[in-house]
Amino acid sequence: MTGMITYSMPLWKVENTKFGNVAYSTFNEGLGKVMRFGANGPDVIERLKWLEKVLAPAMKSALKSSGPIALRVLMAKALAMGDEMHQRNTGATSLFIREIMPHLIKTEQNNADLEKIVEFVTGNDQFFLNLAMVGSKAIMDPVKNIPYSTVVTAMSRNGTNFGIKISALGDTWFEAPVNQPEGLYFPGYSEEDANPDIGDSAIVETIGIGGFAMGASPAVVRFVGASSMAEALQYSQDMQLISVGLSTTLILPTMDFVGTATAIDARKVVDTGILPVINTGMAHKQPGVGQVGAGIVKAPLGCFEKAVEAFAEQF
Amino acid sequence: MTGMITYSMPLWKVENTKFGNVAYSTFNEGLGKVMRFGANGPDVIERLKWLEKVLAPAMKSALKSSGPIALRVLMAKALAMGDEMHQRNTGATSLFIREIMPHLIKTEQNNADLEKIVEFVTGNDQFFLNLAMVGSKAIMDPVKNIPYSTVVTAMSRNGTNFGIKISALGDTWFEAPVNQPEGLYFPGYSEEDANPDIGDSAIVETIGIGGFAMGASPAVVRFVGASSMAEALQYSQDMQLISVGLSTTLILPTMDFVGTATAIDARKVVDTGILPVINTGMAHKQPGVGQVGAGIVKAPLGCFEKAVEAFAEQF
Repeated sequence: MTGMITYSMPLWKVENTKFGNVAYSTFNEGLGKVMRFGANGPDVIERLKWLEKVLAPAMKSALKSSGPIALRVLMAKALAMGDEMHQRNTGATSLFIREIMPHLIKTEQNNADLEKIVEFVTGNDQFFLNLAMVGSKAIMDPVKNIPYSTVVTAMSRNGTNFGIKISALGDTWFEAPVNQPEGLYFPGYSEEDANPDIGDSAIVETIGIGGFAMGASPAVVRFVGASSMAEALQYSQDMQLISVGLSTTLILPTMDFVGTATAIDARKVVDTGILPVINTGMAHKQPGVGQVGAGIVKAPLGCFEKAVEAFAEQF
Repeated sequence: MTGMITYSMPLWKVENTKFGNVAYSTFNEGLGKVMRFGANGPDVIERLKWLEKVLAPAMKSALKSSGPIALRVLMAKALAMGDEMHQRNTGATSLFIREIMPHLIKTEQNNADLEKIVEFVTGNDQFFLNLAMVGSKAIMDPVKNIPYSTVVTAMSRNGTNFGIKISALGDTWFEAPVNQPEGLYFPGYSEEDANPDIGDSAIVETIGIGGFAMGASPAVVRFVGASSMAEALQYSQDMQLISVGLSTTLILPTMDFVGTATAIDARKVVDTGILPVINTGMAHKQPGVGQVGAGIVKAPLGCFEKAVEAFAEQF
């Protein structure tokens, strides 16, 4: 016996059925004091252990019973339920629950565990977020390494810099100082507590959800501190100007069923000066505290300029 | 032993906690071949029996465990999830599932029954409709019998006439020939199959949901055959002109969080000629077939004119 903590992190596995590539993500822990926003107290560790030992094995058995769940179908339906799937996943989480619940009940034999699993998942509106993220990654990975393409295949932030990748230049990151999100804080916190923008969740914006689909999500307007429905619709319209096209499956019912703007073109960003808009959670700048709010942040122009310059040199 | 079929119809009981009145409704059977649209085959009867013997007792035990569920809170949340709660209850049904499921799992000991219950409820987007109806009735009943008030306390259709009640005149029905809904038909059916508008579900429009909240529900636009989001928003705006006020709890996020138009004033309907808009299901005109489509119908002016004339005579 040693004092070492052992932990096998359970992961979702998502396959792009058209291209055969797979992507992985962790399970969503909820809001507030959670590991991914930097919280690390005993309750956080205990929850992670429970996710590993109880929730993940139960989900695995349920998924064996259900067979693979078509994430893009859930995502399309959730856009009709007021989600943009970055800061609001209420609809998508609900739909996922309705898909998996009959199978969980069939496969989970321990009733006390089943109760706790159902309480945890039904109590966490953001449970689907990590599936939206990994689904987005599975969609964008095959877009990498297309010669002459300046489509943005990933956007991420490390709390200091904002980085993007563009298709033709593979896995090179182009970075610029990250912006501070503007938004609303949970009770007891203010902008003095917030770290500059952080996390890899902006992968969802690369396929056209999150900030790009804000027009589909009037309810997120108040959560992220936007002023009005008109502002949300304007974001979704503006994003069309910097994207290659409109999605044929992820449509925005509030905008008369137009497809969401998908596949950001770094050249269009530089040409127009219109910056990708991201709905983001705000982490406390001190480790151990966790999420303190939610807001809107724009990608910095600098990383698009650097990418386009590198592209011009190479091609 | 005789050949008589015995059936005790299970009912939801909903209490208006402010005024103490209660209202009751049946359980929603789903779409298509269902009793409330006139279908009566063996599968319909079998489902009703199962609702009586299995689902209703399980729901009763679960509700004992959960305590009363606040319907108006679910309704307010569902308006942010694209429901108008007459022809679209996807969000409200999902939220209800998330409230009740942990308790169902706790209280239902028969796993085979639990599986079937969960499959039935998760498979029926309109499960919440009957709760929206009975909730609306519980809200409007205390509005009855207010002297000098021309607020509409009920709207209903029997397939031949459309009837309304107004507050000051208690339980008198004022009737006019019912209109034919216009909308979209399920595959295999056309307007030749549809009965004129029928049913008591228009109670939901009296509190400001259903057609009155169409602006909150872009996804219902296509289900009921409206042309655009703008048309849906226009209906919700028009309904403000014939209503007493705007709800303080049932708000429309798509319209910058304005309250839905609530409490139709029969005098305003007659003065403006603007007719209450109702999102409705269409029943086949032959008994035994069931629901054949969904669409939009307007209340006929005649019943409002008759009510206002009777009101003028009395006051």
